[in-house]
Amino acid sequence: GGVDKSVDFANYFCTYGFLYHQKEMLCDRVRMDAYYNSIFENKDHFVGKTVLDVGTGSGILAIWSAQAGARKVYAVEATKMSEHARELVKANNLQDVVEVIEGTIEDITLPEKVDVIISEWMGYFLLRESMFDSVIVARDRWLKPTGMMYPSHARMFVAPIRSGLGDQKMSDFESCMGDWSNFLKETKTYYGVDMSVLTNSFGAEQKKYYLQTSIWNNLHPHQVIGKPCIIKEMDCLTATVSEIRSVQASFSSLITEDRTRLCGFAGWFDVHFRGNKENPAENEVELTTAPSMENGTHWGQQVFLLHPSIHVREGDELNVSFSMDRSKENHRLMEVELGCEMREASGKQHPSFTKRFYIE
Amino acid sequence: GGVDKSVDFANYFCTYGFLYHQKEMLCDRVRMDAYYNSIFENKDHFVGKTVLDVGTGSGILAIWSAQAGARKVYAVEATKMSEHARELVKANNLQDVVEVIEGTIEDITLPEKVDVIISEWMGYFLLRESMFDSVIVARDRWLKPTGMMYPSHARMFVAPIRSGLGDQKMSDFESCMGDWSNFLKETKTYYGVDMSVLTNSFGAEQKKYYLQTSIWNNLHPHQVIGKPCIIKEMDCLTATVSEIRSVQASFSSLITEDRTRLCGFAGWFDVHFRGNKENPAENEVELTTAPSMENGTHWGQQVFLLHPSIHVREGDELNVSFSMDRSKENHRLMEVELGCEMREASGKQHPSFTKRFYIE
Ligand SMILES: Nc1ncnc2c1ncn2[C@@H]1O[C@H](CSCC[C@H](N)C(=O)O)[C@@H](O)[C@H]1O
Ligand SMILES: Nc1ncnc2c1ncn2[C@@H]1O[C@H](CSCC[C@H](N)C(=O)O)[C@@H](O)[C@H]1O
Repeated sequence: GGVDKSVDFANYFCTYGFLYHQKEMLCDRVRMDAYYNSIFENKDHFVGKTVLDVGTGSGILAIWSAQAGARKVYAVEATKMSEHARELVKANNLQDVVEVIEGTIEDITLPEKVDVIISEWMGYFLLRESMFDSVIVARDRWLKPTGMMYPSHARMFVAPIRSGLGDQKMSDFESCMGDWSNFLKETKTYYGVDMSVLTNSFGAEQKKYYLQTSIWNNLHPHQVIGKPCIIKEMDCLTATVSEIRSVQASFSSLITEDRTRLCGFAGWFDVHFRGNKENPAENEVELTTAPSMENGTHWGQQVFLLHPSIHVREGDELNVSFSMDRSKENHRLMEVELGCEMREASGKQHPSFTKRFYIE
Repeated sequence: GGVDKSVDFANYFCTYGFLYHQKEMLCDRVRMDAYYNSIFENKDHFVGKTVLDVGTGSGILAIWSAQAGARKVYAVEATKMSEHARELVKANNLQDVVEVIEGTIEDITLPEKVDVIISEWMGYFLLRESMFDSVIVARDRWLKPTGMMYPSHARMFVAPIRSGLGDQKMSDFESCMGDWSNFLKETKTYYGVDMSVLTNSFGAEQKKYYLQTSIWNNLHPHQVIGKPCIIKEMDCLTATVSEIRSVQASFSSLITEDRTRLCGFAGWFDVHFRGNKENPAENEVELTTAPSMENGTHWGQQVFLLHPSIHVREGDELNVSFSMDRSKENHRLMEVELGCEMREASGKQHPSFTKRFYIE
């Protein structure tokens, strides 16, 4: 289920039309350094080459590609941000190399195929926004058979964590349900209407909001209490939409901290810039959004909280099944199902549970 | 310029599908008392009558109409909230009187014309959301010639105010522009790109956001420093879309406080429940959203700030021209142009100025 194009423009693309939002991405030093280094430490991938920047935004990646020596750069942007990209290209005197094209990558055409597709398409937990679909379209239509993808590879991780957020969300939820009780009393007393029949529906709505929606957070590495597991690896040169539309994985993770609480799981991603088989990168660059004290990113991690948390000890084993699908109402949002079984180091088995989450 | 229907559902109607949002309205005691009293203190308008509730939401106004003795109530709601309305009607044992119909008032049909149209259609500063357009459709299609509107009349007010918000917004704006300067330097130093060509566009975007967007506020009555003026009066029985699409007024207001600052203007509204000429209300009810210490509403007031503020004294006269039109991109949002000329009590004339505002 996709959303129709005018809704997509009103909701998804809309935010990218603001310089304020582009600036937030341009201020993410980890992100910027990774793309900058991937280009300038592997200049031979760009010198004399044709490049396509999918979703150029302010134009930054197209400009760097040109500065690194590209012969021609096509910079495609769906929103009016294209006009600012064009100004910026001009102000940096690259108008003979960079051609800014306003339109969705799905709609536009190029005069030639390209050697490199560069794009910063990653959303929260890699796949939110589903923008990689558009990169696949670009690749299948416009990349030469010998071409390469920037970035070339991506991985998704999940790890068990501890966090105070769970208690806070639970107490927010409870106070919201307390308000509801008061509201019921007042509405009955002052306005003669009994609204208690709506309690379950209201509770479900608030539970979804407070307890089942994943939370953006920049975790401290100490909050990770077990081995992070790779739940998905993809090669950007060959990945297909059907492969990313639904992500399924089973893994087990050993708790590495003693006497702590399992409060939930965190999801993050990394991408690598490796060139391709024929032309591997001289200097491979990694962009990771893992919990970090000094290198946090604007992506942070997505946190999936358990209520209540569970006492765990070093050596306890978690057997987790993870599945993520697109939301039926909006293909840019995700739904996650997380099943977990715990076996204590002592051998004692705990009852398994399953929880649904929404990445909104 | 309207927005297309799927966008309207994704953006406008969407919020009304949440019980949380309906509850916020149901918790506004000033709003609730006004509708409740207008119905139960004028029961003869309802006893044995047919009623149409335009945008029934949770169903509250339809339920009250039925409790007051209506023979039949059609409760029309565009969103899935209709399902909760239906549950609530049933739980209050009114399913024989209240018929909940899911659909937009523009799309549905009724089996008969009605005696009363009741609706809570008012947005911020009365007209934001443009929902009265739908009430007009309902009236022209489904109200008997002898029918009446609940509410029957509405007015919009503007008054000069003082407020600390202006200084705060200005300092937010300035710190945002300071960040931008740093950002320019860093981007040039670390990433070799000169982005200064975007400064004007970024400034305009932030100025619109911080300084030209009207602000929701519940003002203290003391913050009103001059005579409030009525800029629009409407009779809900006869008002037309062309009459509300654009609101124009010129007025003068005398400053009533000595030695204070004119920081901007506030806009609010009231509505009245007067029945109609043949059947005037026995007990007229007023719902006002004017600044009030104890009777604030969820509508608050819309504040339009001047930068910088202006020193004024008692007796100074403001000659204001006000015009409000719908935004071209989204007919549910508004744009305001406010012209002001000040003549001091001493006779001294100040230069006039004009400012644009956005009600988002
Ligand atoms: N299908 C599509 N066609 C064209 N542009 C798209 C697109 N999907 C997303 N975009 C654009 O892609 C951008 C992603 S954000 C990245 C912006 C820029 N490349 C940078 O690295 O700073 C947004 O500006 C968005 O509007
Ligand atoms: N054209 C239209 N047709 C049907 N419902 C509409 C509509 N425009 C707005 N609405 C609905 O009107 C409601 C306005 S809010 C008021 C809800 C309720 N009458 C109460 O007083 O508490 C929302 O639920 C919204 O979804």
